[in-house]
Amino acid sequence: MAEKKMVEAITSMEEDFAQWYTDVVIKAGLIDYTSVKGCMVIKPAGYAVWELIQKQLDERFKAAGVENVYLPMFIPESLLQKEKDHVEGFAPEVAWVTHGGLQPLQERLCVRPTSETLFCDFYKNDIHSYRDLPKVYNQWCSVVRWEKETRPFLRSREFLWQEGHTAHATAEEAEERTIQMLNLYADFCEEVLAIPVIKGPKTEKEKFAGAAATYAIEALMHDGKALQAGTSHNFDDGFAKAFGIQFTDRDNTLKYVHQTSWGMTTRLIGAIIMVHGDNSGLVMPPRVSPTQIMIVPIQQKKEGVLEKAYELCDLLKKNFRVKVDDSDKSPGWKFAEAEMRGYPLRLEIGPKDMEAGRCVICRRDTGEKTEVALDQVTEKAGELLDTMQREMLERARAHRDAHTYEARTKEEFEEIFRTKSGFVKAMWCGDQACEDQIKEQLAVTSRCIPFHQEHLADTCVCCGKPAVKMVYWGRAY
Amino acid sequence: MAEKKMVEAITSMEEDFAQWYTDVVIKAGLIDYTSVKGCMVIKPAGYAVWELIQKQLDERFKAAGVENVYLPMFIPESLLQKEKDHVEGFAPEVAWVTHGGLQPLQERLCVRPTSETLFCDFYKNDIHSYRDLPKVYNQWCSVVRWEKETRPFLRSREFLWQEGHTAHATAEEAEERTIQMLNLYADFCEEVLAIPVIKGPKTEKEKFAGAAATYAIEALMHDGKALQAGTSHNFDDGFAKAFGIQFTDRDNTLKYVHQTSWGMTTRLIGAIIMVHGDNSGLVMPPRVSPTQIMIVPIQQKKEGVLEKAYELCDLLKKNFRVKVDDSDKSPGWKFAEAEMRGYPLRLEIGPKDMEAGRCVICRRDTGEKTEVALDQVTEKAGELLDTMQREMLERARAHRDAHTYEARTKEEFEEIFRTKSGFVKAMWCGDQACEDQIKEQLAVTSRCIPFHQEHLADTCVCCGKPAVKMVYWGRAY
Repeated sequence: MAEKKMVEAITSMEEDFAQWYTDVVIKAGLIDYTSVKGCMVIKPAGYAVWELIQKQLDERFKAAGVENVYLPMFIPESLLQKEKDHVEGFAPEVAWVTHGGLQPLQERLCVRPTSETLFCDFYKNDIHSYRDLPKVYNQWCSVVRWEKETRPFLRSREFLWQEGHTAHATAEEAEERTIQMLNLYADFCEEVLAIPVIKGPKTEKEKFAGAAATYAIEALMHDGKALQAGTSHNFDDGFAKAFGIQFTDRDNTLKYVHQTSWGMTTRLIGAIIMVHGDNSGLVMPPRVSPTQIMIVPIQQKKEGVLEKAYELCDLLKKNFRVKVDDSDKSPGWKFAEAEMRGYPLRLEIGPKDMEAGRCVICRRDTGEKTEVALDQVTEKAGELLDTMQREMLERARAHRDAHTYEARTKEEFEEIFRTKSGFVKAMWCGDQACEDQIKEQLAVTSRCIPFHQEHLADTCVCCGKPAVKMVYWGRAY
Repeated sequence: MAEKKMVEAITSMEEDFAQWYTDVVIKAGLIDYTSVKGCMVIKPAGYAVWELIQKQLDERFKAAGVENVYLPMFIPESLLQKEKDHVEGFAPEVAWVTHGGLQPLQERLCVRPTSETLFCDFYKNDIHSYRDLPKVYNQWCSVVRWEKETRPFLRSREFLWQEGHTAHATAEEAEERTIQMLNLYADFCEEVLAIPVIKGPKTEKEKFAGAAATYAIEALMHDGKALQAGTSHNFDDGFAKAFGIQFTDRDNTLKYVHQTSWGMTTRLIGAIIMVHGDNSGLVMPPRVSPTQIMIVPIQQKKEGVLEKAYELCDLLKKNFRVKVDDSDKSPGWKFAEAEMRGYPLRLEIGPKDMEAGRCVICRRDTGEKTEVALDQVTEKAGELLDTMQREMLERARAHRDAHTYEARTKEEFEEIFRTKSGFVKAMWCGDQACEDQIKEQLAVTSRCIPFHQEHLADTCVCCGKPAVKMVYWGRAY
């Protein structure tokens, strides 16, 4: 039964993008729903993607001097309340623990929605001198936010993420680290996930609760909606003052530390699906695909076919993540399943191929088939995976650019959001009232103020007053 | 200040083992206490050990066909209550979430103390046919048990662990998997952590809430107390019947699945400390030591010394985890710190060594110093690390054997526990009343019924009735 579902047609993107997304996450075996409302099971095919993201991101972190730690999952209510903006932002969406065993607790604990307050409490005890700085810590964990509307990977009550939290002697160093991690995230998205992103600060309205500045990377999904793929916050000394985190500097005076935090989550898996997927299912970028090559034997009952498939698997395993589909299903069925699950390459080997000393390799993204001599299979598979990784990024960038518009007037702005879907670049006066109005009228938000600024017009696209910045606007996940 | 503490004398083991343990976990920088009662911060030096445990255990899991998944951290109260023994065992020690955001929940959720019930709920939907079996899933996560008395790593309200949960078509296959994972745990402890263990089933009294059988690996700490280092449970079809997990078998009849679960936790770090540590601090087994070689430059301000230290570091990094202590502290201070943190090898390099074309390598466990020619440093360091890993296991085994006693009568049994500390092998009638009496009178519990049985006497060491099994008894963490 499970198999039948697998090859059933999924809803087409064009017909209903949201349903297409749900079909893909379920039929590609990434998640399952649970009895816990708003929470999901991440199944082996989904979790293996997260493991590859974790591994490659963690390697980049370690090369950037990040050390991993683990802090408690609970935050006492009094601790959460220490930074005013922060508690206002998070209190309405946290889960509260009120009983331990059979006893009511003296103080409620919330399940961490993010761990700034815990890191501050820890740093307050751990930092004394300039010699103790900087602290560049990160943790991999799950967090909880009591969302009303949930969608697999994109918005769930519990999700997996990493949260980096750093403390520095100077404001300059904190700002440098904030930007360093933003750039690390952007490079990771482009090089590993093949997802191009726009980098820049958020507006005041959109920044993180308690932050002095929030920087984000913004990606465009296939349906033209934006997705915030990672954020990096500079707290200046706001949290340090609220928590009393001071150190004795070289000049023997007491100073407050300057802090940052930055995070990426399992929603990246949602981004992979919505940037690269198609009407046959998932299309996985080779670098995060748990299976890079699926070998499908043709006429596998014929003598020597399965043996040859296993032999190729053993050979390719030295360089790639490879499996053989030796199940009893028909090749057609296996092809459809391989497409649904998005394996980058499908390698077909049958009696005729063996006779000719070759096999056929099919690319998931283009469907292009290549005949490959068996003694060149490692080299050729490597080339195809590299090409596919590169072209997936290029294709995503072309799609993003083709769906990025410019608006100089309010009429143009509204017209675009009425008829099209994508990023809109437009000038802004810097006044939150304009953001509020745009959000209310069009359900459009400012995504970021890109580092790469252009001068499209002199006046704000909303109010017509003098403009100060160009902003990327969009409808967002 | 932090540095001064580091080299202060720690309490000696002989004087106060519990205080020695606390001193070591703090002064070696493994953990810090938090504002959340019973929860700890695992600091970089501690978390890096867990990462090495995770990595090596996970590799063994994957080689044994285990797939990783992630299930929610919350369990609805009604789900927890489905298996009677299970809820009785866990309900008194779970944390309850009663509010999501500003609203009270319709049904309380507990923070998972373990995830049998969630896996059952998932398997009920995911398993239909014999083709869907076996399921051999595992998750790495944190769990919460509302303990009254807590100690870092050994017993805390939140701890990190892995929990494997499997479902099989037959009882035989479930039992095979239970034993396979127990053996995997035992091999891991011995080969990676250098901790010898006793394997065998627990008595009925000591088994896991809801299990048909619990198997454990038991280790002996330096103070002669026992520590359960891992458990593997066979649930038979008990949970399957409670949750209705059925599949259509090859013969087209509906059958219940047979399940297992198995787990190891961050308490392994406590075991490493208490098996290998000494009065100078931590002694890390090379295979789980985040830093295997600490290079300490002597007279580092003399020309070329630091350069040589970095050069050796770059060379050794190709094969080992290496650091240079290039801080401004004195060599004596650095030596004491290296000992406190338990780095397996300390490499000293100074002007005289450079002139002679050699360095000095000192083993943390024995204090033995070896002069090593600079052109043989990689080879020699590898040999020393291998020897140290092997000898640490041998030494731990010799200590365990020297503190394992035999008792044939009640008087002998009591005399040993009055005057000595260790494992006691003694015969048992199989009656829980004897276990209860021994626990009440001596605070001693049955640790396991070892696979390797000996016939020490005909009668139970407690009641004098005919004995059925030899049991390992001990006082436990």
